[in-house]
Amino acid sequence: MHDSTQKLMEHFKRGTDEVLVEADLKKKLESGKVLRIKAGFDPTAPDLHLGHTVLLNKLKQFQDAGHKILFLIGDFTGMIGDPTGKSVTRPPLTKEEVAENATSYTEQVFKILDPEKTEVVFNSSWMSEFSAGDLIQLAAKHTVARMLERDDFNKRYTNGKPIAIHEFLYPLIQGYDSVALKADVELGGTDQKFNLLVGRQLQEVYGQAPQVVITMPILEGLDGVQKMSKSLGNYIGINDEPNEMFAKLMSISDTLMWRYYDLLSYCDIESITSWRKQCDEGKENPKNIKVKLALEIVERFHGSEASIGANEAFTARFKRGEVPDDIKEVALVSDDSYPIANALKDAGLTASTSEAYRMIKQGAVKLDGEKVKDKSQVLSKGSECVMQVGKRKFARITIT
Amino acid sequence: MHDSTQKLMEHFKRGTDEVLVEADLKKKLESGKVLRIKAGFDPTAPDLHLGHTVLLNKLKQFQDAGHKILFLIGDFTGMIGDPTGKSVTRPPLTKEEVAENATSYTEQVFKILDPEKTEVVFNSSWMSEFSAGDLIQLAAKHTVARMLERDDFNKRYTNGKPIAIHEFLYPLIQGYDSVALKADVELGGTDQKFNLLVGRQLQEVYGQAPQVVITMPILEGLDGVQKMSKSLGNYIGINDEPNEMFAKLMSISDTLMWRYYDLLSYCDIESITSWRKQCDEGKENPKNIKVKLALEIVERFHGSEASIGANEAFTARFKRGEVPDDIKEVALVSDDSYPIANALKDAGLTASTSEAYRMIKQGAVKLDGEKVKDKSQVLSKGSECVMQVGKRKFARITIT
Repeated sequence: MHDSTQKLMEHFKRGTDEVLVEADLKKKLESGKVLRIKAGFDPTAPDLHLGHTVLLNKLKQFQDAGHKILFLIGDFTGMIGDPTGKSVTRPPLTKEEVAENATSYTEQVFKILDPEKTEVVFNSSWMSEFSAGDLIQLAAKHTVARMLERDDFNKRYTNGKPIAIHEFLYPLIQGYDSVALKADVELGGTDQKFNLLVGRQLQEVYGQAPQVVITMPILEGLDGVQKMSKSLGNYIGINDEPNEMFAKLMSISDTLMWRYYDLLSYCDIESITSWRKQCDEGKENPKNIKVKLALEIVERFHGSEASIGANEAFTARFKRGEVPDDIKEVALVSDDSYPIANALKDAGLTASTSEAYRMIKQGAVKLDGEKVKDKSQVLSKGSECVMQVGKRKFARITIT
Repeated sequence: MHDSTQKLMEHFKRGTDEVLVEADLKKKLESGKVLRIKAGFDPTAPDLHLGHTVLLNKLKQFQDAGHKILFLIGDFTGMIGDPTGKSVTRPPLTKEEVAENATSYTEQVFKILDPEKTEVVFNSSWMSEFSAGDLIQLAAKHTVARMLERDDFNKRYTNGKPIAIHEFLYPLIQGYDSVALKADVELGGTDQKFNLLVGRQLQEVYGQAPQVVITMPILEGLDGVQKMSKSLGNYIGINDEPNEMFAKLMSISDTLMWRYYDLLSYCDIESITSWRKQCDEGKENPKNIKVKLALEIVERFHGSEASIGANEAFTARFKRGEVPDDIKEVALVSDDSYPIANALKDAGLTASTSEAYRMIKQGAVKLDGEKVKDKSQVLSKGSECVMQVGKRKFARITIT
């Protein structure tokens, strides 16, 4: 193997969960061909968040190395619903909903990928030509037993929870997308591994060289525990305002910060390792490193000026007297994350959690100067913030 | 309930395996409506045999009572292959093969059903309009677990034998046919019960009154053991020549004769019961009753003249010296049916089974005066026949 291929292999493998199979990737890279790199996106959640960018960042690496990105919007499969990781059947989207979502998707993607070097494709363009007979032919290429080997299907079947038969067709269609696109490599989350391998298998059935499957880890949300997800409310949207994005990033725990460095930062691995060492040895305040991360991420989506501004605004709320200098310090102990209403009550800012809910509803609660809108918001373990109720009541809270 | 409905109910129930549910059938009959009676046929086997006519005879009863017969040729599903009762995936037929078979089918059906009162329908006429999306919507209406409750699927899944995913779509399409046809009643073999019930369930999902499901027993072939089937070679085709049909019917055992009377004869039940009693008491020779059956069936497909002719020809081969009067009698003992080559050897007509195969291949072997074409033909337990090899060697064989 050439040295350069070896270097590229290491570059592409960084941060991945699995590369199946590495030997195939080496061979494809050594061929000198422009590789066709596929990633499929489900158009049900049109607001991209940092969780999605883990994959986009990896696509960008392939793009920067001269390969062709096929950004697939599963608008056809969106009408089936994606059963991955869910224990109940997701209701199908209408064609209109799918179309709206897809438009919003592409606008956001190009904050990371170069639109000139990215082909946005919709699987409806070949699947809408598929007849029932074609789908039957496709369905003949896989077995019930193999489908039931997929973790979530197996769990549901074993627990007597219903699996609708159309859910078995979804991985086949997703796999067929790889055939239609003649993909060399497909990227996806670890929860997509089974489906990505179906693509590999179907390509062989259809006489193509099987695609390399690369799985990326799932990014945890602000709570540091659950997968980042819009429905869990623990996300940082790439369309979040600079100030909000900055404040959210500053609210994460130190542990989660290092995870975010691994999966989101473009900094080289040597710098990150050295900062971590300095923090561990008490030579550096983790808060400063967190500011670096927040600056990098906000700059990526809003530019350098907005990023600097967000940092200043964040600091200002403490320094320029917008928050009293001598507010009380409260340390709250938790095994996990801390629901905001409980934090308000336990810090003595409200008399009860129901009063806390009421104040949030009235818009009277602020967190680091930002109005709290979601009463089920949680404070992650290890985070530090200033909470405010009304005009007068303040507390600096640390969750330990 | 009116007396006339009660009578009709008994008429329609005669010979059936199950009626699901009887109360629904009564209600439909009492409504006075012309009922839509559906029966689906798989166009893979274009040569109808007496086994198929068990169902056709029941359809004829509904037709004679003024109801509308929807004779469905599953030409679309034929391209999937019918997994019913099979332990391996059946290869799909091409459109061309299906079309040829379907034409031959309809020609034969009208030997029993009145073409004026029968609507021949092809499910391709609605299924070929189905898109992949429509099929997905249909597939969403049933679950994997319920599909795996079907006996043969369950057995294959449990035994680790592959079930291709398209096989799960077949019962759904068959069920959807009932929706498309707005069927009031569907008839099928007992092995079709699960699929017929899927139709009942889908009609409810689509807001229709669920069809009544009537299952008919499966007719045994000439061997009296296995289901009558072309591939097993134990069948009487409705296109068989009169002499061949007559001779085949005369070759069945006495036990099987009564079964055929139950499922194939149009004679009233009282006559059959009385003949059976006479035979049991030794007052009647079963052979005479067998002649009656052979005459009735041959007349049905070839007319009364051909039927009488076939009887005369059959008798002639014994009476007019075409077979020597004093040929040797051989009784062969078997637990089951007897392969013809073994019978030839064991009766001393050939030196070995391989000589027997050779003689059959040369066209030198006759059974009751008819040339034996199929070297894997079997003689059923209880049957009596004259075997001949070449011009000189004869034996009257009884399998006991």
